[in-house]
Amino acid sequence: MTDALVVGAGCSGLAAALSLRRAGVRVRVLEARDRVGGRVLTRWLADGTQLDLGAQWIGPTQHLVNALVDRYGLATFPSAAYGASVVVWEGARRRTEPPGAARVLDLLDTYAARLDPAAPWTAPEAARWDRTTLGDWLAATAPDPVTARYLGRLLAGGLLAVSPDQVSLLALASYLASGGGTSSLLPTTGGAQQDRIVGGPAALAEAMAAALGPEVVRWGAPVVAIEHDEAGVVAHTDVGRFEAAAVVVAVPPALAGRIRYAPALPALRDGLTQRMPMGSAWKTHAVYPEPFWRADGLSGVASCAEGPVTETVDSGTPTSSRGVLTAFSYGAQANALRRMSGPARRDALLDALATVVGPAARQPDEVIEYDWSADPWTRGCFCGVLTPGSLSEYGPYLRAPVGRIHWAGTETATRWAGYLDGAVQAGERAAAELLAGL
Amino acid sequence: MTDALVVGAGCSGLAAALSLRRAGVRVRVLEARDRVGGRVLTRWLADGTQLDLGAQWIGPTQHLVNALVDRYGLATFPSAAYGASVVVWEGARRRTEPPGAARVLDLLDTYAARLDPAAPWTAPEAARWDRTTLGDWLAATAPDPVTARYLGRLLAGGLLAVSPDQVSLLALASYLASGGGTSSLLPTTGGAQQDRIVGGPAALAEAMAAALGPEVVRWGAPVVAIEHDEAGVVAHTDVGRFEAAAVVVAVPPALAGRIRYAPALPALRDGLTQRMPMGSAWKTHAVYPEPFWRADGLSGVASCAEGPVTETVDSGTPTSSRGVLTAFSYGAQANALRRMSGPARRDALLDALATVVGPAARQPDEVIEYDWSADPWTRGCFCGVLTPGSLSEYGPYLRAPVGRIHWAGTETATRWAGYLDGAVQAGERAAAELLAGL
Repeated sequence: MTDALVVGAGCSGLAAALSLRRAGVRVRVLEARDRVGGRVLTRWLADGTQLDLGAQWIGPTQHLVNALVDRYGLATFPSAAYGASVVVWEGARRRTEPPGAARVLDLLDTYAARLDPAAPWTAPEAARWDRTTLGDWLAATAPDPVTARYLGRLLAGGLLAVSPDQVSLLALASYLASGGGTSSLLPTTGGAQQDRIVGGPAALAEAMAAALGPEVVRWGAPVVAIEHDEAGVVAHTDVGRFEAAAVVVAVPPALAGRIRYAPALPALRDGLTQRMPMGSAWKTHAVYPEPFWRADGLSGVASCAEGPVTETVDSGTPTSSRGVLTAFSYGAQANALRRMSGPARRDALLDALATVVGPAARQPDEVIEYDWSADPWTRGCFCGVLTPGSLSEYGPYLRAPVGRIHWAGTETATRWAGYLDGAVQAGERAAAELLAGL
Repeated sequence: MTDALVVGAGCSGLAAALSLRRAGVRVRVLEARDRVGGRVLTRWLADGTQLDLGAQWIGPTQHLVNALVDRYGLATFPSAAYGASVVVWEGARRRTEPPGAARVLDLLDTYAARLDPAAPWTAPEAARWDRTTLGDWLAATAPDPVTARYLGRLLAGGLLAVSPDQVSLLALASYLASGGGTSSLLPTTGGAQQDRIVGGPAALAEAMAAALGPEVVRWGAPVVAIEHDEAGVVAHTDVGRFEAAAVVVAVPPALAGRIRYAPALPALRDGLTQRMPMGSAWKTHAVYPEPFWRADGLSGVASCAEGPVTETVDSGTPTSSRGVLTAFSYGAQANALRRMSGPARRDALLDALATVVGPAARQPDEVIEYDWSADPWTRGCFCGVLTPGSLSEYGPYLRAPVGRIHWAGTETATRWAGYLDGAVQAGERAAAELLAGL
């Protein structure tokens, strides 16, 4: 009998397994796929150019993930930042944000500072802020509609991959609190998009799995049911049943809700999983012979208040001469792209890139997409987002263990939730909880 | 090989199976429980008093369900209506609604009249109305906060069992359109709460199952996976695998999303099931030696703009001398009750009933509750409700078949969605779709 099980070999599950192993617990990680990493995935072009199809960056205050990068001797490199960033609003490419944006971001940071990211529902304003969508709040607070639309896309989209009307002010402010505020979350240099890992975050996941050893991760083993009682747990998978004293479930809440539990989970825990859909992002890598925008003094970084693409970045690497421009679309825009034919989507995306870096964007060598919403073992990205009104009501059930079942996954982190760092924190916290209960 | 499978023996699945059988198709209904009826369940007290723990009523324009009641020779009786109804607002029991309510309901009916309940997302106002929560719209539209709160509870709660901030104006107006407007949905006499079935709606489900015959429903057979391709479907259950040419899935979207499909369902269909949580209702039957409120000229029917209970009704039956007062709580209020200890909840509920019918309400013989949110094969009631922003975005995927998989359940009805009648309509429509594709 294994002492503990972990469901899901993403970075959160692997972090949990490593913590458990370090404490002397025998552990088995049950993974649906034939790879580790969950929402991280590296694609290598024929010439060796690295594309990060899922999670891409680590930031300077993400201490847990940086410590793992050091421990496993992985190399990092700074995100490309060679020229000027642009902002697209009211039909034109500009060098500055809409003028009222900074003040609204400051106000949001003061809201975030009033929240405990481990229990945002305890704030006096919680119920009121949870009833208000970010979109409504911005419409009432921003000095003009352009600023409201720009910030709605930047924040709801760029941080959570949803439309501004699909997240409450409370959930957004709580996310800001978890990541150290807008000055920590939004920038490239000095912020959450500062650095990248050679080999991508997938290299970190692989190093974590290698540290666990060859017998620990069981492949092709989606957990379809968990029986649990005071004596232990039994997980049922496609490749048999696994018994243990306890389990860490390290998949997103929406997917955790699809596992069949016996006895059934309490109403409010189940209700949480019904109300935390995955974000909806569409991430496109357009690959060019060279990063032609740099010669024009452009960084390739853009934020767009209109059009199908909300953000672009230069995803080039120091070891490749090719130019990689990455476009992010969110919420309704991502779904609109999803509904298009491949050629129509390609045209729409390349048109948007041309607005940012000029017409040469229309001639890529390759366009690489990966739809995490179509992947049955992830079903959306970046992460699960509680619907308006749900964080204040169901938030307390996000982390609370149910008997011998503990919950990990970046959604359950209290610091850097939604990021690799949060995945690690959540895994280590769930492991500590499990150990305390053994 | 069975020609068609139906997942779920609620009224929708049974209606689908009956339609398929009538067309000469061999059909097998796979049911997780050991009973039919899904969200309908009758409890009989020792003295023979009938309590409807789930769905309770049928209305005069619900032609499909009335036709079934006639076909199976079931008896009905009118809902008890002996005296004056009351409305609780601003701390007092009154005989009238807040004065501005009627005008706001009229306005909502004009909105509903502009929607096609089969495709509310096609209305010019759809995106805008879907971004607006009912709560926000009422706050901006009702003449005063009391009216806004009263109507929010009456509509979001009474119709959908959610808080007013958890449903969009579009989803609410679409629901009104589906049920014929507020004058059809809200009243007892002449409306959706007019009549009851002797034996409860469970008697109807049992009659439908009996008409199918003894070999058709397979008990204890929760469908955990569905394989599907151009040749047919295979459903995997606890009691083996079942093959057929096609399948009707007749469980709520939130639960349909928990089935594992191979190949996996498209991103936007899966996204729908992530965004349609079940409502959260708490229904309590307080049983008394007699319906004492009738002697005071009270009907037992109340609508409350404040407190833990939103609605009460007299659920007495003509054949029992006992008094049955039924209290409904919704959304945040239902969850608050769910978090209480049993004795604390009983006190809170009986206090609320005392406000409506007087202090004798505090001395019931019995208090009967059933928590549908805790039931793993229903997980909430009355029905699934798309979160704000989701109906316009994901609505088209509610009914669209995926290959040989067809979707039923009252949530997919275009008339009387959320009601028994809608369950029947949805089942019959899905069966017709399936037949057309054979």
